[in-house]
This record gives sequence, structure tokens and C-alpha cells, in this order.
Amino acid sequence: MRSTVVRYQSVVRIYPGEECGVVAVYGHPNAATLATYGLYALQHRGEESAGIATSDGKHPFRIQKAMGLVSQVFDSTSLAALPGQMAVGHVRYSTTGSSNLTNAQPIAVVCSQGELALAHNGDIVNASHLRARLEGRGSIFQTTTDSEVILHLMAQQVGKSVEQAFLWALDQTEGAYSLVLMAKDKILAARDPHGFRPLSLGRLEDGYFLASETCAFDLLHAQFLRDIEPGEVISLDADGVHRLRPPNPIETSAFCIFEYVYFARPDSTIHGINVSQARIQMGRELARLHPVEADLVIPVPDSGNYAALGFAEEAGVAFDLAFVRNHYIGRTFLQPTQLIRDFNVRIKLNLVQESVRGKRVVVVDDSIVRGTTARARVANLREAGASEVHIRVSCPPHRFACHYGIDFPDPNSLLANQLPVERIQSYLNADSIGYLDIAGLLRACGSQHSGMGFCTACFTGNYPVAFHRGLYKEILEKNQTARLAAK
Amino acid sequence: MRSTVVRYQSVVRIYPGEECGVVAVYGHPNAATLATYGLYALQHRGEESAGIATSDGKHPFRIQKAMGLVSQVFDSTSLAALPGQMAVGHVRYSTTGSSNLTNAQPIAVVCSQGELALAHNGDIVNASHLRARLEGRGSIFQTTTDSEVILHLMAQQVGKSVEQAFLWALDQTEGAYSLVLMAKDKILAARDPHGFRPLSLGRLEDGYFLASETCAFDLLHAQFLRDIEPGEVISLDADGVHRLRPPNPIETSAFCIFEYVYFARPDSTIHGINVSQARIQMGRELARLHPVEADLVIPVPDSGNYAALGFAEEAGVAFDLAFVRNHYIGRTFLQPTQLIRDFNVRIKLNLVQESVRGKRVVVVDDSIVRGTTARARVANLREAGASEVHIRVSCPPHRFACHYGIDFPDPNSLLANQLPVERIQSYLNADSIGYLDIAGLLRACGSQHSGMGFCTACFTGNYPVAFHRGLYKEILEKNQTARLAAK
Amino acid sequence: MRSTVVRYQSVVRIYPGEECGVVAVYGHPNAATLATYGLYALQHRGEESAGIATSDGKHPFRIQKAMGLVSQVFDSTSLAALPGQMAVGHVRYSTTGSSNLTNAQPIAVVCSQGELALAHNGDIVNASHLRARLEGRGSIFQTTTDSEVILHLMAQQVGKSVEQAFLWALDQTEGAYSLVLMAKDKILAARDPHGFRPLSLGRLEDGYFLASETCAFDLLHAQFLRDIEPGEVISLDADGVHRLRPPNPIETSAFCIFEYVYFARPDSTIHGINVSQARIQMGRELARLHPVEADLVIPVPDSGNYAALGFAEEAGVAFDLAFVRNHYIGRTFLQPTQLIRDFNVRIKLNLVQESVRGKRVVVVDDSIVRGTTARARVANLREAGASEVHIRVSCPPHRFACHYGIDFPDPNSLLANQLPVERIQSYLNADSIGYLDIAGLLRACGSQHSGMGFCTACFTGNYPVAFHRGLYKEILEKNQTARLAAK
Amino acid sequence: MRSTVVRYQSVVRIYPGEECGVVAVYGHPNAATLATYGLYALQHRGEESAGIATSDGKHPFRIQKAMGLVSQVFDSTSLAALPGQMAVGHVRYSTTGSSNLTNAQPIAVVCSQGELALAHNGDIVNASHLRARLEGRGSIFQTTTDSEVILHLMAQQVGKSVEQAFLWALDQTEGAYSLVLMAKDKILAARDPHGFRPLSLGRLEDGYFLASETCAFDLLHAQFLRDIEPGEVISLDADGVHRLRPPNPIETSAFCIFEYVYFARPDSTIHGINVSQARIQMGRELARLHPVEADLVIPVPDSGNYAALGFAEEAGVAFDLAFVRNHYIGRTFLQPTQLIRDFNVRIKLNLVQESVRGKRVVVVDDSIVRGTTARARVANLREAGASEVHIRVSCPPHRFACHYGIDFPDPNSLLANQLPVERIQSYLNADSIGYLDIAGLLRACGSQHSGMGFCTACFTGNYPVAFHRGLYKEILEKNQTARLAAK
Repeated sequence: MRSTVVRYQSVVRIYPGEECGVVAVYGHPNAATLATYGLYALQHRGEESAGIATSDGKHPFRIQKAMGLVSQVFDSTSLAALPGQMAVGHVRYSTTGSSNLTNAQPIAVVCSQGELALAHNGDIVNASHLRARLEGRGSIFQTTTDSEVILHLMAQQVGKSVEQAFLWALDQTEGAYSLVLMAKDKILAARDPHGFRPLSLGRLEDGYFLASETCAFDLLHAQFLRDIEPGEVISLDADGVHRLRPPNPIETSAFCIFEYVYFARPDSTIHGINVSQARIQMGRELARLHPVEADLVIPVPDSGNYAALGFAEEAGVAFDLAFVRNHYIGRTFLQPTQLIRDFNVRIKLNLVQESVRGKRVVVVDDSIVRGTTARARVANLREAGASEVHIRVSCPPHRFACHYGIDFPDPNSLLANQLPVERIQSYLNADSIGYLDIAGLLRACGSQHSGMGFCTACFTGNYPVAFHRGLYKEILEKNQTARLAAK
Repeated sequence: MRSTVVRYQSVVRIYPGEECGVVAVYGHPNAATLATYGLYALQHRGEESAGIATSDGKHPFRIQKAMGLVSQVFDSTSLAALPGQMAVGHVRYSTTGSSNLTNAQPIAVVCSQGELALAHNGDIVNASHLRARLEGRGSIFQTTTDSEVILHLMAQQVGKSVEQAFLWALDQTEGAYSLVLMAKDKILAARDPHGFRPLSLGRLEDGYFLASETCAFDLLHAQFLRDIEPGEVISLDADGVHRLRPPNPIETSAFCIFEYVYFARPDSTIHGINVSQARIQMGRELARLHPVEADLVIPVPDSGNYAALGFAEEAGVAFDLAFVRNHYIGRTFLQPTQLIRDFNVRIKLNLVQESVRGKRVVVVDDSIVRGTTARARVANLREAGASEVHIRVSCPPHRFACHYGIDFPDPNSLLANQLPVERIQSYLNADSIGYLDIAGLLRACGSQHSGMGFCTACFTGNYPVAFHRGLYKEILEKNQTARLAAK
Repeated sequence: MRSTVVRYQSVVRIYPGEECGVVAVYGHPNAATLATYGLYALQHRGEESAGIATSDGKHPFRIQKAMGLVSQVFDSTSLAALPGQMAVGHVRYSTTGSSNLTNAQPIAVVCSQGELALAHNGDIVNASHLRARLEGRGSIFQTTTDSEVILHLMAQQVGKSVEQAFLWALDQTEGAYSLVLMAKDKILAARDPHGFRPLSLGRLEDGYFLASETCAFDLLHAQFLRDIEPGEVISLDADGVHRLRPPNPIETSAFCIFEYVYFARPDSTIHGINVSQARIQMGRELARLHPVEADLVIPVPDSGNYAALGFAEEAGVAFDLAFVRNHYIGRTFLQPTQLIRDFNVRIKLNLVQESVRGKRVVVVDDSIVRGTTARARVANLREAGASEVHIRVSCPPHRFACHYGIDFPDPNSLLANQLPVERIQSYLNADSIGYLDIAGLLRACGSQHSGMGFCTACFTGNYPVAFHRGLYKEILEKNQTARLAAK
Repeated sequence: MRSTVVRYQSVVRIYPGEECGVVAVYGHPNAATLATYGLYALQHRGEESAGIATSDGKHPFRIQKAMGLVSQVFDSTSLAALPGQMAVGHVRYSTTGSSNLTNAQPIAVVCSQGELALAHNGDIVNASHLRARLEGRGSIFQTTTDSEVILHLMAQQVGKSVEQAFLWALDQTEGAYSLVLMAKDKILAARDPHGFRPLSLGRLEDGYFLASETCAFDLLHAQFLRDIEPGEVISLDADGVHRLRPPNPIETSAFCIFEYVYFARPDSTIHGINVSQARIQMGRELARLHPVEADLVIPVPDSGNYAALGFAEEAGVAFDLAFVRNHYIGRTFLQPTQLIRDFNVRIKLNLVQESVRGKRVVVVDDSIVRGTTARARVANLREAGASEVHIRVSCPPHRFACHYGIDFPDPNSLLANQLPVERIQSYLNADSIGYLDIAGLLRACGSQHSGMGFCTACFTGNYPVAFHRGLYKEILEKNQTARLAAK
């Protein structure tokens, strides 16, 4: 058995399914169009591929997926090919190695459970182990993503209902997942027990809508009902919403705090806290923790905008948008190839030199990953004549890898993993540097009011879910290369 | 269990894998290029998709497949992406419904047997039954072709050698198949026990070459070694050719006689008989069976050329190529869409009116399927001033469906299934009509010398292998629409 | 002659060459790559097509142009096909009717002057007249753009130098133009006598660089030398920069003030005034002219950002980015099709409802064109619970068409052309509305310091250059449809 | 002036417009569809690009052209974009250098004559001279083909009728041309004074049809009216057919005899002689001129088929189709790139070895150009066991270039230009060789009955029209490379 497993590993590299967005529509005649608009609103969660599967409950599922942005993948032609009142959709960012259409989602299969279409945001930490076990029983996989194991586990449950099969499959699965699954006449949805990734439920005319973030609700004029809670599993069918498994106690939750800091859109509201307002609070906390005499506060746009506003207001210092972003490029964070990322280092931000000349400037950023671009930006400000440059970062230093769905670079490439804070300041050539601390960050995210727990593993190294260091880690680490390089 | 099976059927329509060509190369540094040339020579066996998988025995398999002709799919770019000294290749014609890339071959998978790539010519008659059984055990299929069941059967044989797994899978499989299968460091090949479809083995410098027809050998300067015999299974590896299973007795063979009549290329030699010479003999037999006073013998080009030559020589009548074919169209037989087929009825043949004016003309055709175009051709000759038009057909009337790899239309659409011969003559408005009989056809194909048995089911209804009339037939018949319409 | 002219008009509709960006490189071995970066920085000036022509002074010109963004048109393959140390480049926005590759620029021709490649920003108001005259002499045009007449005029000057031919052609040409022209071994550049559109000259290592805006200089680390002045014509060759014609007196200039308000990038500096700082001044002037009691100032992003900052600072009111823009769409202003524009009305901006609830909100926009989206935005704010909504616009009401290079909709579609200001307020359902006046706008753009004259025709109807109301206007007006509709 | 001309030459290489087919439709509501079918029938005259321009007499012309076969360029989408009851169409083969879309025809322009669309078969020998003169007057050309000069000449005739302008342009033009020209409400057509290339007129329901060959008439059920005669110019308009210029005396005609030998389709009839029957006569003449004792006559298919039939009948020797052609390749003659041609040398013909073994074989070919493939074919026959190989060629040896529309290779590459006949035999390793002589060829083509004159320049070097050896020849000869290489 052992040798069999080893043989698979030499051939298949399983890619963690990180940084994605999911939507689902139940009970609306234009399900595909609404799913498209929903994915459009979630585009920031994954720019490499987009896909939608639909069903009318009678005919075989229809599916369209392709590499590219939502606006490139879906047009009147592709939408006309997606009839039905149920839909699941997905946008995806992935590592370079697996940037291909085969791995795009939703994954649609026919099996003993009939037709199933799955969209997944998160990272199944025991996927390699499960896949080896399933192949050892005769299964043949279509993709190299971690998500497909859930469908194979369900396919094993011959004779069981799709609900039973789904719950059984989730019982085998460890890690981070917000899932939407379309079966013949229903939509199932689940969040992992720690609730690492967001997922919200809304009302859409006579039907229902699920999306990773509430910004997708606003666009569709969908009425927000509630968040799916950590550990909760539901189904949507002709009789409405059913809770298949109750949520875990809120204290055990471990929501990814980096969603508030950077990843989620500012107009989304998660667990009752608006993201842009949380960021403004981060800026205020930061101004109180690391005050500085200055003439001007400027953000690193767009992710630093709100924290900078909060800092400027709290500090009583003037605010300007002196860095001008070229919006014809996507988010650097999400550009996969070295070529494009190098290009972006030069092109994404231009400085209005007239605005900073002779001034003491505070630059507010959401995070510093490798430090390469932060360093270039300080040099840029000094060339333009800024008399002082103070860096303020709206979260603690990043020191550890994420195993639950954010694709940071290898920890050895993280600036704060390699250097203490004082040496970061000299490396960046800043007059001062200040990071927000964990306590301030938790306050800004409302933890004291909501009782919500957060995953802060990338700052603290405290991982809520163990991962197979032996088998899995070597695969994972190979994959974790050349990411976030422009930060 | 029964209900499970029914559920699958409502979703997946399994497409018989008909009318294909396969090649394999073992032990040549330019395996992909040679496979491409081989497929080029077999292009007449399938014009819709082409694919090649290669391996160097060390790295993961490489595969390129696409809709289109071999010359469209393979160029210097795609060949550069196919390194290795082993290759399997496939050209495919399929029904309209499944004309998509997902179903193109070779099918490559990773499973408990490691990597496998399969190319199949033929028709597995119990494929639906096997698929239902496999899905009932938890398997998930990637394609809707019948060929994939072989790979799933092999994947179940965890811990067995690839040779054992292949033989075990073939034991479950009924129908027509000429198969080539690439595993990590070897090529396997098999013909079904009746040997419905051809498959030949050759020497290619220091390596080996397998192809559906010997015309592919000539092109590559490969040295013909022998036909793979009905029921035989072999492997090619570093130690040479191994016979994994011996052939069946020659008397039990049932080679498709329509390969000689129409399907195979005239420059191929099957079981020791050259196809063009067999066709000339069909023409001679036909002239003896149905003599006629005439001034001119003309073929329906190109498939009727050799039978017409044989007829003219035997009858001592002048021969001319009065029908001129437009070679910018593919074989009508293989054009899948109604649109193109309608177009072809008007455009594929033009008549040199000066050549037939005032003459008694014998038109020699290889077969009459629906009769639509044959009738139009008689009208055409009469308009041009032919004084008499006599039709001669180099095989018996087509009355029955093929279940072993030729995609005839529904029997209700076969002219000879609906009308007796005398009414066919009046329907076509011919002065006389004559079909070759079974005995003459068998003689022309050398059955008296080779002892070879033939499948004549499309003429006689005698099917060598039973097929599941219940489950399978309903699926099959749905698929058998709109084919061969231009004949 | 007249009848001939009329005959042409029935066939060819000449499209004004509006809203474009141009670059030129002289004397750098990577001319095409640098031109690409330059066009990237000017992408906001034209999103429909991009093109670059290069020359090494010896071989025929090389040219690559295609519909799409700079990042879509130019990659390593297309750049490898553009060797040479000279380049001219162009990005283009055009009316729906002429959104095709034939009209993309640079326009490259061979004629009596040898090879020429032209890129043009502006609008030649007597183009139809010139074209009719040239066709009447036997010329055959390749495009339906106004720019091509310049090349035909030059081609007529057989035996003259390219400099003489260029000056002679410009003498015939009326209207707005910033031009770069590549000849065999030199680059020529010109601005029309009024200087409607910007054009700046820089030093790029040992060579020279020309671009519509200085934001392109920053990206390339090119050293800004000076603006090409209104009426000035220069050439760049192996001996450096030559002034072929001196500039007009600065008082007669008529620079498009809407470049400062909206069109130019905030990080560009034109005639010594930084655009973002001019916009902040517009906001300050606006706050003084139309003060209001309020709790929050928010911009319509991104074009209203700086004016809103200036307003908030001057008024001492809190500032927030409550509208969140989805950057996966291009600038609405530049989206050509009705389909996409309709889509954008719903999707381009989302409101953070938590930020405005219960507050008296000032919304600062750069301009109101049709009013459709402005009205929708007020409704959006009221739904979110804003207690008051005050609109402030950083320029005067748009009442007239532009004939010099900005593609406003038909004047009948301009809200301010149809309604007085008080009725605009009630149409938009705002609690108050205030437009900046001409005097304040001119002050913000530094006219008192620079002595620069401005074109304010779209506000005032005072057109600096007459246009052929008879022949030309009817064509022009037919073209001016369905533009700026989302404003 | 002279220096100006030289300057153009360094930049523009004018490509002779060789080997093309043209069609025109006047007065049929489905003009574009019928033109498509017509081009389909003429596909053998040019496989690289296809194009059609249509008009309804009211709106601007519509045009579709692309690289590729007719069946690739025209589908329901492209035809829907071509409304109107008038059409001109073109298929084109060209040298490698100019194989691009810009040079594809019809060429459509707007000029002083209004809209014009031209399709041209032939070769204008003074094109470079005319172009230099036109550019010296200020014209700007769009293409590098010789055909465009005709449109520029017409554009110069301001104020003249389109008929006058056409006749005037033809007066300047020397060489070979069969032309169709669409103007606003009429079709014009012309053949050069020698009538090098064919052009025929037919009736199509209530309208008219023009095509290079009559095989296009049969397909459309168009009624053949007559050939356009050498020197004749006609127009088709609402009043019917008008003769604008009468034909030249038939004795001065110089029709390309190679059209009968090879280029035209066998089912076409030119000047009253059917092509396949002329080829059969060539074979009979050849058998009488060069008799041989033999067992079998085989053609080099498909172009040698009819001559071989004639030879076999005249000689009383058995006939077989022992060479089998792979029809998935186009005509070798027309494959432009070295890569494809090399491929074709190996793949286009396969030999049925069983048919020739132990026999004395006569191989009948239409022509030998370079001799490379003829030599390989003899070797092929000897390997297969032919006891003798006799070559018979149905025209005289090719020794000279064609300047009127056939793209032979450089004369230095012509086998018969380099070697006397006896050395050709030994070079090819044939047991005997025999070429048809001029007298026999003229008899086979019916010259004694029709009084028609023929151009035999490629055999004799007697050129009916002088060509500019100075300026033009150097350009032309550069172009004449790498063509006909597979012959």
C-alpha cells in the first residue's frame, strides 16, 4: 500500500485551492446571469479562471469555465448556454504550476450520486492523503486540485442520499473550506468547523443567493439574511433552507483576520463588521500605538486607503492621494507570473512629486510581505524630496505560512520572518516604522463585541488545524514558490 | 441497484467509439513525429479529432489533442511539447452529440496502475453495463465514450501488474476493439476475439510501430512484421515483443468485410490481401454476375474507382473518369453536420457532360446507403445526355445496423432495408441495377485462401457478438441518427 | 467638382480622431518596449486599440496594431517583431462605428516621401473637405479617420523634403492636433496653433521621448525637458532637436481645460501645473463658492477624488471613500458599447452603507454629462440612509459639443444643455447642487500665473477654430451618438 | 524622378498576381452565397486566401476576406455580413513573401470613381513602372500586389464615367489579366488582348455570372453563354450585357496552353474544348509519338489521370491506379512553404506495390518541373519490383519562366532548362522517357479547329508580351523562388 502511495506522489502534485470566491443561486430563472454578476463582485478573490455550472433540475448540468476574468469568460453567448434556475460559480487564483483550465472550478462530475458540481474556497490540508487512499481503491481523478477529493468521497457513498454523502465526505476532510455544491434539485453549502473563509446567505426575489462576500449581494439587490456559521451545513431546495448540521460554538471559530486587513472588499460586511470601517479603526489604533510628527499621511493605494484615512483623522494630519495607481493592471498580489510581476513593480504606482516635496510623510500600507516594493517606494519618496518617510502598517509583521487559503510566499521570503523590526526599518531606509499589534487588530475587527475567534497564524504561528507535516508539507512547500513576490 | 443504474442512464449517453484509427510507437526518439505521420496516413478513418500521448519513461505523460485534422492539430509547436520515445495516437470520427474535445483520444489518466494512455478503434457493446457497475462502486468518469471503461476496470486492479490488469479488463469487455495502451515503460496492444477491426505490427528502425492499416507503414518506411491476430494481446518493452495472450483460431474470426469494400485505404494490405486488388476483383465478380451491354464504365470516385476498373476490364468496355471530385471537401461519409452534408450533395462530384453524352453508361459504386445521392447522380447523367444508366454496386444491399464500429444510419433509413432490389431500381430511375452477392464478395476478399472469417452483419443480420438489447440498444439507437446521410 | 464631393460623402463617413494618446522614441535600442510602457501610462486616453511602428533606419518599417488594451496587444512576441531605435505609438478611443482595426494608428504608408508612420491626437475639423479635394485629384484612402489626410497631403509634395512636406500639410490642416510622425531617419512632432491637446518632450538616456502626458515620463525615468508649445513643429534626428517652426504667442493658446478637470492623469504635469493639485484647487474654489453644512464629503471615484479632498479640507468636513469602485471595469467614459455601459451603471460603484447612514453627505463629482448615473447615485445614497445629499461639481455645466478631440454626446443629450441648474437639482433629487464657475476653474488651472489661454467651448460655446458647419457638421453630428452615456 | 523611383523600389516589392480564380455575380439576391459556391469550384486556382465583396447598389460595399480555403473563410456568419445582389470574388495563391491578408483580393477602395472592388487573375508586367509613376504623382498604395495599379489609374480619371476610367486604365496596363470589377451599380469585366487567362460568362436565373472556369457554372446550374474573348471588355447592369470594347482577332490570341495541360479543372470547358478530353487526346498523341512495349500504364494522380487513360487506350495496355493519393493535402503545386512541401514529397502518393511487381510500367505525368519527385517515384517503382519504368509526359519540356500568371520556379531550377532530354532520362533513372511535342499538344487542344492561338512561352521562350527586363525583372526574379518545388 505504501509503495502505491509513493507512486502517485511522483506523478501528481496536488494544488491547494487557495484564494477563491464562490457563489450559488437557487430558484431564479436567470441563475447564470446573476451568478456572473456575483462573481464579478468577487473578482478580487481570484483573477485567473472563472466558471459557472447551472441546472434546470431536469436536463444534464451545463457548465462554462475558462481562464481569464469574469468579463472575459462570460458574455451573451456563454450565458445563453447556461439555462436553469440553479447555479454555482467560482473565481480562482492558483499557483503557476496549475494555472490551467482542467483545474478551474466548478468541478462537475457524474457519479453514483448523479450529477454534482462543486465550488470551493479554502485549502483541504489532508487532500494528498485522501487522494492516495481513493486511488488505492480504484478511483481516477480528473484534476490536480484538493477540491476533487470531496466529490470522490461522495461517489463512494452509493445508495446514500446526497446530504448523507456530503456530511460523510466533510467528516473525512480537514482544513479550510467554504463550499457550494449543486445536486440535481438542490444546493448544499458548508463552512469548515473553524470558519476560516467567509460565506453569506441572502434572499434573491423568490430564491436564495450564497456568496463569499456581501459586496456581491449589494450588486444584485439581494437581501442579506445571515452568515453561514463555522461548522454549519445547509441545503436549499423547493422547501426553503434546511440546516443539515448546526454551527460550532462561536468561541472555537478561527476566521482569517487577513480578510479584514487586505483580502476582502472594503464594501463587504463580515460577521456584522464592515470591512472599510474595520480598516479605518486599524488606522486609528495604529496612530495611537505609533504616533509621529508629520505633515502628510498618504496611503499605498488601494488597500491602504482606509487605514490611512483613519490614521490621518486620529493624528490630525493632512491626507492626500499622492500615489496614483494605474488601474489597467490587476492587483499585484494576484499576478501569477514573474514577468508580469516585474512589470508591475515599475508600473502600478506613480508618485505625484509636487505633493510630497519638502514634507514629512507617513505612508500607510496594509502589510509588508517581501519588502521589495516597500523599499522601492521609500526611495521614490526620497527622490521626490520628502524630508522624512515614516512607514505604518495596519497589521502585525507576517512571519508564517498560511495553510488555510492565502498564498503567501515561502516563510523564508517573508521580510519579518528574516529580520527583527528594527532591522526592517533600516532595510527599508525609513525614518520610523510601526506595525499594529494583535490586540489592536482584534479590537479593530470587533472581536470584543462579536465573541468571534480569529486565525492569526500568519502573525503568530498558532495554527488552529494541524497539517500532515510528512506527506503533505513537502508537496505544499514545493508549491509555495514565487508568490506575493511584489509585496 | 437497479434504480442507481437508471439514474445514470438519464444523465450520461455513452457514445460508441466507432470509425477510428490508432497508432503506437515504441523505442524511437521521434515517437511523436512518427505517430503524427502515421495518423496522417489514417486520416480517412476519422476526421474530427486527433491526439497523441508520449512518454520518455521518466516524466509524466505529455498529451496533445484537439478537434480537427491531423495537419491542423500537429505542428512544430505541438510536437515540441511531446518528447519521448513512446507514443500512442488516435484519429476519431464520432456522432454529432459527442463531437467534443473531452471525448477525443488518447484518454490519459493517473490511477492505481500509474499513468495510462489509451487509444481505441471499435465499439464495446457492454460499455453501458460496465459503466453503471463501476459508478455503482464509486468511480467517476471523465468522458462519455465507451473506451474509458477499460481504464476504470484496470484502476480497480490495485496491486496487480499492468499486464494482469489489462487482461482482466479485456475479460470483462465485449464487442469490437483494436487497442493500443501506453503504460510507464511499455506499450500494450490487443484485438478483440473476433478481430473486427484491423491492427498491424511493424519494425521501425530499432523500435516498433503499430497501426490500424499498413498504408501507415509505407509512409514511415516501417517494415511490416505481421497483423495482430484476433484475440491476441501483446506488449512491447525493452526486451522486445511479448505475447500476453495467444490468438483465437482463425475460423472464429469475423473481420469487417466493409473495410475491404469501402473503409480501408486501397494501398493497405489486410491479412495478406491488398485492398485495391480486392476491389478490382469485386468489380470482375460483379461484371460476371450482372453483365450489361454498354459503351462506358465510370466509377463513383474515389471509392468506386477500383471496382469500376475491374468491371471495365472484365466486361471489355471503355473506362473513363467522367465524375470529377472536388477534393477540397473531406469524405462525405465522415462529415458530421447536416449543413456540410447538404452542401456536399451538390458540390462533391461534377460530371464531364461531353464524356457521357449519347452513351450507355455503367456507374460502379461501392455501396448505396440511403440512395439520395445515387438517385441524384442518375438524374445528372440523364440530363447530360446518357442514353442508358446502369448501376452496379460492389457489395450486397445494406440492410442492418453495425454494432462493431461503422456508423451506418438507422436501419429505417437504409434504402435496401426499406425496398426490394427491383423497387430500388425504379426509385433510382436506373435502366438496371446489380449488387455483388456475398459469395462473390467473399471470393474477392480471398476468404477461400486465407480461411479468414468475416462479419457480414450489415448485409445479413448475423451478428457475431450479442449486444444488450435492453439497456444498451435504446441508447445506441438514439445515437444513430443523421449519419451516412449523403450516401 | 461639387457633385464629386457629394458622391464621396454618401460613401465615406470620416471619423474625428478624438481621445487618443501618442508617444515617440528616438535613439534608443529598445524603442518598441519603451513605447509600450509609454502607451501603458497613457492607456486612460484610449482603450480600444493600440499600435506601435518602429524603424532601424535601414529596413522597412515594422508595425503592430490591434484592438484591445496595450497589455493585450503587446507581449514578448509582438515586441520581438518590432526592432529599431525609433518608434511612434498610439492608443485610441473611437466612436462605435469605426471601432475597427483599419482605423487604428499609427497609420503607415509608402509614398513619394518614402515610408511614413503617423500617430495623431486631436480632431482635424476640415478633414472631409481635404479628403474630398484629394480624392478629386485621384488619391485613394485606406482609413476613414481624419488623420490620413495629412499623409496624403505630404505624398503630394513630390521632390520636397519630408520636413517641407510636413509643414505644407499642416498649413492645410485646421483644428486640434498633437502629432508624431516617423520618417526614414527622423521623428517629426507638432502641436496645432492653439495647442488644444498636450505633448511633452523628454530625454531618454541618449535619445528622446515624446508623450501626450508626463505620467509616461515618470514610468520610463525619462527626464522632462519641456512641453512642445502651441504651433511649434520640431524634428528629432542624429543631430538632436530642431525647431522647424516656432510656437505661437502664448496668449493665443486654447488648451483644453477639460484635460485638467477629467481627462489627464492626476500625476501628469501640464504647462507647469500638476493635475492632481489643480483638481484639489478646484475643490477648494468649489467649497468657497458653494459652501454647505454637512457631516461627510465623499468623491465619485476616481475622477472626483482630488476635488473632494480639496473641498473637505477647505470646508473642514470629514472625508471618506464611501463609494467603492470595481476596478475590473475600465473607465465608463471610454466604454463604447451600450451593452457594457448598461452593465457598468449597475456595477462600477458600490456604496458602503454603514459610512453614510444618518449623515448629511456632500458628493463631489468632476462633471455631469447626461445625469443618468448622477441621479442613480443620489437614490443610492438616500436608500442607504443619508439624511441630506448635496452635489458639487468641479467644473461649469456642460452645454456644448467639443470639436477638438473630446467625444461628448450630442448636445441634446447633455443635461445642462436641456435644463437650467435649478431644474437639474430637482431632476437629480439633490438637496442642493453647485457647479464651479469659469473664473474659479481658470484660477485652479493657474491661468493667472502661466498666461496660458484655455478652450472652454464645452461650457461657453466659444469655439477657437471655426468648423465647416455645412459639409462637416452633418457628418460629425451623425457620429456623435451614444457617447459619455454613463455620465 | 528616377531617383524617386529607385527609392520606392528599395521599400516595396511588387508581387505578380499569379494563379488566381475570379467570380462575379450580377442580379441575384443571394449573390454572396453563389459567389462562395463559385469560388469553391475554383479553389484549385488558389488556396491561400479567399474574398468576396458585395453591394446592394445603395449602401457601402461589404467585404470579407481572409487567409485560408473558401470553406474556412465563408460560413453562415460571414455570408450574413454580405448582403446585396452584386458580388465579386477571388481565390489566390501567392509567393511566400506576400502571403498576407493585406494583399488578398478583392481590393476595395473609395476614390473619385466612388466605390470599386477588383478581382484579378494574371500578371501585369509593367506594374512596377506604373506604381512608380503613380506614387510620383502622390498616390498612396494599400497593397504590394500588381492589381492595385488599375484602381489608382481609374482614380486619376476624375469626372470620367467608370467605364471610361476602366478602359483608360486598361490602356496603360500590359500583360495578362482576367478582371472583374464591381462599381456602384454594375459589374465590369475584361480579358487582356492576348487572352492569357480564361473567363466565361453565364446566365444565372435573372442575373449573370462570370467565372474563371466553367466548372463553377455546373455547380450553380448557371447556363453557359460564352467565353469573354481576348481583348474584350464588357459591363453588366440593369439593362443587360454591354460590350465596351470588341475582342481582338482570334489569330492574335495567346491562351496559356498549360491551363489545358495542368492548371484548369478537367470538368471545365475552355474555348469549346473540354479539358479532360483534351488531356485524353494528349495521352493518345503521346502514345503515338513515343510507343513502348509495356504491361501496365499508371498515372501520376490526379493531374496525369486522363493523359494516362488516353495513352493506355491508344497503346492497348492495361490501366491501373497504382499510385494512391492522400487527399488530406492540397495540391503540391500550390503549397507555399518549404516545410509543407517537404512533408508532401513523402506523403502525397503511396504506391500499391502488389500492382506493379514484376511488370513493365509506363508512368504518365502532366509535367516535370524540378525532377526531384519524378526521380523519387522511379526509385519507388523499382523498389516495389517493377521490371521496367518508362516515363511519358503530356507536354514538352519546361525550359522558361512564365510572366503571365503561372508561378514556375526560377528557370535555373527547371530540370529541362539544365539538362538535355537524354540526360534527364539517366537523371531520373528511367528505362525511357518521352515528352509530347508542341504540334501534338496544339492538336490535342483543338487549335486546328478553333483557330485559337496559344502561349507556349514556358516551352519555347517565345513571349507574346515584352516585359521590362531592367526595372521589373530583378524584382520579379527575386520573387520567383521556392515555387513548384515538389514537381
